Amino acid sequence: MSVGTVERYYVGLDVGGTTMKAAVVGDDGRPLTSPVVLPTRPERGQEAGLETMCETIRRAIAAAGLSLDRITAIGVATPGLMDIRAGVILDPPNLKPWKNVPVREHIRKVFDKPTAYQNDANAAAYGEFWVGAARGCRSMVLFTLGTGIGGGIIINNQIIEGEHSHGGELGHLRIALPDEGRLCGCGARGCLEAYASATAVVRRTREALAVWRGSTRLRDYYTATDAELTTRVIFELAEDGDELARQIVEETAFYLALGATAVIAVVDPEIIVFGGGMAEAGAGFCARIDTYIRRFGLPHPSRQVRVALAELGADAGVIGAAGCARQLVLGGHHP
Amino acid sequence: MSVGTVERYYVGLDVGGTTMKAAVVGDDGRPLTSPVVLPTRPERGQEAGLETMCETIRRAIAAAGLSLDRITAIGVATPGLMDIRAGVILDPPNLKPWKNVPVREHIRKVFDKPTAYQNDANAAAYGEFWVGAARGCRSMVLFTLGTGIGGGIIINNQIIEGEHSHGGELGHLRIALPDEGRLCGCGARGCLEAYASATAVVRRTREALAVWRGSTRLRDYYTATDAELTTRVIFELAEDGDELARQIVEETAFYLALGATAVIAVVDPEIIVFGGGMAEAGAGFCARIDTYIRRFGLPHPSRQVRVALAELGADAGVIGAAGCARQLVLGGHHP
Repeated sequence: MSVGTVERYYVGLDVGGTTMKAAVVGDDGRPLTSPVVLPTRPERGQEAGLETMCETIRRAIAAAGLSLDRITAIGVATPGLMDIRAGVILDPPNLKPWKNVPVREHIRKVFDKPTAYQNDANAAAYGEFWVGAARGCRSMVLFTLGTGIGGGIIINNQIIEGEHSHGGELGHLRIALPDEGRLCGCGARGCLEAYASATAVVRRTREALAVWRGSTRLRDYYTATDAELTTRVIFELAEDGDELARQIVEETAFYLALGATAVIAVVDPEIIVFGGGMAEAGAGFCARIDTYIRRFGLPHPSRQVRVALAELGADAGVIGAAGCARQLVLGGHHP
Repeated sequence: MSVGTVERYYVGLDVGGTTMKAAVVGDDGRPLTSPVVLPTRPERGQEAGLETMCETIRRAIAAAGLSLDRITAIGVATPGLMDIRAGVILDPPNLKPWKNVPVREHIRKVFDKPTAYQNDANAAAYGEFWVGAARGCRSMVLFTLGTGIGGGIIINNQIIEGEHSHGGELGHLRIALPDEGRLCGCGARGCLEAYASATAVVRRTREALAVWRGSTRLRDYYTATDAELTTRVIFELAEDGDELARQIVEETAFYLALGATAVIAVVDPEIIVFGGGMAEAGAGFCARIDTYIRRFGLPHPSRQVRVALAELGADAGVIGAAGCARQLVLGGHHP
């Protein structure tokens, strides 16, 4: 078998606050199996956490029917705070009580493989850049819509990690002045996340409901918990023609577009991708965002930028982490 | 003479709407002479413009006491709209009636030298990155404060040009919602430029003066033209203790900090540099911006980012254009 035809395999591990997931991914960006999923249980401490990471990687390799010696490299993605260059988890709010965990070095030593380390949102962006919605593009920005708003930026195959590992923290793009803006979880007012995260959409819905004089099926939810009144409910009611729900969805597209126009003014990407749960609202939502980008953005780049929904779903982080491992080994500026 | 000791020289040409400037710059980033300056006279047409560019380059080489064969490469910076990759001026508002001018190819053919082409604000940023306020840094963002607000972003020695040559258009970072924000020259409301460019600072001063009940020496300027009531006057009065002028300057620092925190959320640079005429306000102004960045930015990166004033003054574009020429020839990721 010549070198050119040797298939290379990478393990991508995506660590979250609740679960961690891993899969073996080929050079073509396809996972060989569905990801193996284990509970993270951060409360059991970081030693146990590191061991669970290793176990998830081992099980993913086994699930793919491979032995460790067939693995070229490993990529690990975790939520922040982190020091990407040092390969260390610092003090992330959803992995308490972990602190200063040398993830990259630990994984590298245990498996004796080149190991890449990346922020989870950056890894998801890299996955979409490599084999998802932005494949073939030179530059892309991903907005991940969930409880908060995360993001990742790739330019010429390089992730914009930031000097302090905070590149692509797009939820904290400002869209309103501090004295007028909504309060964000970061302590400031006016951040995009305070308007357009799933949490914020539900909050805006409750506020609007309190002053809405027309009829709306959202009134059935006035005592509902946040587990019941979700963005999925709101988007479905909007689809069904409920006027208040429709307004909430429209305003959400507007706010997301304002964030997108800011990121256009900074990095002017070829494509902007919207991912995460709320992006399942579908192509119509995406088109509304696009309309507002053209209306409120700098004309020249805003008319040309592509807007798309993410394609890799919940596997983006695993695939992207594997992609980072591949990039570590292959190097270079193009996928 | 061994290869290692051969001194390389580059010509940097910075084309503006009123004048164009060029100088020969050594490998150490030092211009050999003050820049040669010729009037641009765009109204004479683009053929004449291209010839003036060549003449400015020739005179810069002569001023340095060199012959063309001692020049390794040439770098040209122009204002937008442009297509950086194609090397073409498209349709910039301050170079009318020029349209679709193949600058890079023309210069390359006339001088038979490798020729780099770059946006003028990006070139200025590259100059500060190479040998100015950000020398030795891995990543930097430059805000250029003038009639408008321009900018440039450098990460790992690479200029963030943008897919449509609009990277670093930092004047159009949003700091306020469209329905509440100030009107910007781009047609949108809420852009940073509408609050904190020199033009905007004077406009805010006139508005504040109209409702100010206290005493202020700014009242002497109530019928003054914009040539008389300048940011320099406002900053000087603030230094002298004039309360209204002091408030205007303080608010300007606040607005610039809001723009800076947005750019931190996107690229999280090592250093943010403020340049252009208004930045001559000095270190005290810079410190006020820094204070507001820490107050309103994401805590982790905002506490660590450095804030500085530009060091190369009006020569940043010429030096940076030469630096782009050097980068074109030497390649690689580090200066």
